[in-house]
Amino acid sequence: VSSSTPIDTPAAVVDLDRLEHNLGRWQAEADRLGLANRPHIKTHRCAEIARRQLELGAVGVTCQKLGEAEAMADAGCEDVLVAYNVLGESKLERLAALLGRARVTVTVDDEALLEGLAGAAGSAGRELGVLVDCDTGLGRTGVSTPAAAATLAFAVAGRDGLGFRGFFTHPSPPGARAFLAEAGAACARRGLAVEVVSAGGTPTMWDCEALLPTVTEYRAGTYAFHDRATVAKGAATADELALTVHATVVSRPAADRALLDAGSKVLGSEVAGDGTFGLVLEAPSSPVVKLDEEHAYVTVAPGDELELGRPVRVVPNHACLVPNLFDELVVLRGEHVVERWRVDARGRSA
Amino acid sequence: VSSSTPIDTPAAVVDLDRLEHNLGRWQAEADRLGLANRPHIKTHRCAEIARRQLELGAVGVTCQKLGEAEAMADAGCEDVLVAYNVLGESKLERLAALLGRARVTVTVDDEALLEGLAGAAGSAGRELGVLVDCDTGLGRTGVSTPAAAATLAFAVAGRDGLGFRGFFTHPSPPGARAFLAEAGAACARRGLAVEVVSAGGTPTMWDCEALLPTVTEYRAGTYAFHDRATVAKGAATADELALTVHATVVSRPAADRALLDAGSKVLGSEVAGDGTFGLVLEAPSSPVVKLDEEHAYVTVAPGDELELGRPVRVVPNHACLVPNLFDELVVLRGEHVVERWRVDARGRSA
Repeated sequence: VSSSTPIDTPAAVVDLDRLEHNLGRWQAEADRLGLANRPHIKTHRCAEIARRQLELGAVGVTCQKLGEAEAMADAGCEDVLVAYNVLGESKLERLAALLGRARVTVTVDDEALLEGLAGAAGSAGRELGVLVDCDTGLGRTGVSTPAAAATLAFAVAGRDGLGFRGFFTHPSPPGARAFLAEAGAACARRGLAVEVVSAGGTPTMWDCEALLPTVTEYRAGTYAFHDRATVAKGAATADELALTVHATVVSRPAADRALLDAGSKVLGSEVAGDGTFGLVLEAPSSPVVKLDEEHAYVTVAPGDELELGRPVRVVPNHACLVPNLFDELVVLRGEHVVERWRVDARGRSA
Repeated sequence: VSSSTPIDTPAAVVDLDRLEHNLGRWQAEADRLGLANRPHIKTHRCAEIARRQLELGAVGVTCQKLGEAEAMADAGCEDVLVAYNVLGESKLERLAALLGRARVTVTVDDEALLEGLAGAAGSAGRELGVLVDCDTGLGRTGVSTPAAAATLAFAVAGRDGLGFRGFFTHPSPPGARAFLAEAGAACARRGLAVEVVSAGGTPTMWDCEALLPTVTEYRAGTYAFHDRATVAKGAATADELALTVHATVVSRPAADRALLDAGSKVLGSEVAGDGTFGLVLEAPSSPVVKLDEEHAYVTVAPGDELELGRPVRVVPNHACLVPNLFDELVVLRGEHVVERWRVDARGRSA
């Protein structure tokens, strides 16, 4: 299906060489460190990319939402971590159904969640794995002290149907190891085995040797594509950027202003530290200063050529928002479209 | 299909009474002023809502992108304005196909666009309507002076296959009328009829009597649902908010912090003037201070009750981003789910 036909814009385009490089490089690093690699599929929501990650050696996938996990199980993933508090009747029924067809682990940060989870495991007739979510600095979910983590671990272990697996944190700042080690020690002292200590986050992935030997598993998502944020944080170089939004210059109303046909409905609307909304590879000195729903406003620097009709590629600030805004990813090998991959878990935020 | 079963969250939920009120109130105002109402469907991207708008008296629909227009034509809309510069081989082929099954008008801000558009009209064997896009203050697309607008109008009128219809602007600040009137007068002086002068924007919709008699047509989109932004701008009251994201409190890790299962993948990530990301109707004093992809961070005010598992409704900052993130809208009459409407043009940004 190789074709050099121009791509209708806007489109989410994957550079296959770079994707393969990114997936392989990180798997090799995880192997070198003896870390289980459990990639987060929220970034791509695409079964074909998950399949490649598993084929390279990932132990399973990480999902944020049950809907993502269902889509991954539909695609044949047999080991799924749902890194989320799962609660409520409808979600627990769905969790039981999922557990009927995959090995499932969830995270928890509250003892009040356990009854529902145990009920789901009971319905499925299969043990549900549980990791205790630890807040090691982000201030989002998670228990806030190692002692609380250990207490919740014992509460999990005491429930029929639930299997305490270990601890979980996101992201993984330097202080994370001490917290996780202390929680683990508190379990060990009272005879509770900790199999898994799961850390994650692309920005810190190349520094995670410092989390050894406490951490046993690592979850990265953005590393498949990278984006302006992970390059800014030093986790990737510009030539590792594997996802761009192909766009077209659709208006040149002034010498210093170009409009692209890629707005917040394809790039997301997260602003970068410098106040801009994406990087135009063909005109890197010309910032994207604003997004409307269907327009990117580019302030054209002298010397940059962005003539009406010109095709351009925009690097998103945050790659994880982009595939979810498309039905498919257009896959390039060099200049040629070689595949189109469905975004299987698109819209699966429930 | 009436049901009071809890809605699985997150979900995009429409209050049907309020939607009907909003659609009817604006149609009545347009009728009172003698303005053609051409609602912008980018907000809802939903054929069922477009059908209701047309049934109430809209003269046709406005779309931002060709993909939206194709979806509306699929749903039976016979008169479509594509408020965008359409260019490039693929888009022009699609435009010709669309013109074969609907009355189509496009906007232009550059003479260089006309050859392609005339070619598409020629392929279709049907006249393509054209409005000249005027920049009356936004600084996005559009010609920047009335004289340039008139020059482009004559260029359009001189092309076989293209039918000059008139002028277009967005949004519609007070200064817009003078610009549009001057452009129209320049055409009239040289014998070119201006049928349509199209203004738009929900924030200014209740002030558009001031645009008479120059303006003949008005395009509003957000008015169907309203949102935090249009309420803040005085275009709606809180009891006209017709779209909320239903969510659940999924974590209560601290007394002053609640996490909802609605993040930037369902609310969009546009920040309001006060730095917040949505309004929780059940806890209006508790601001949504941050969004991750699947979490809203709520700072819980003393007295607000946001216990683990509680269902809540979040008013989005910008409604136009929300339906596009869902496959369907859940429609409530009072407390009961009475319909589910497909978001037909979801993802149709190309």
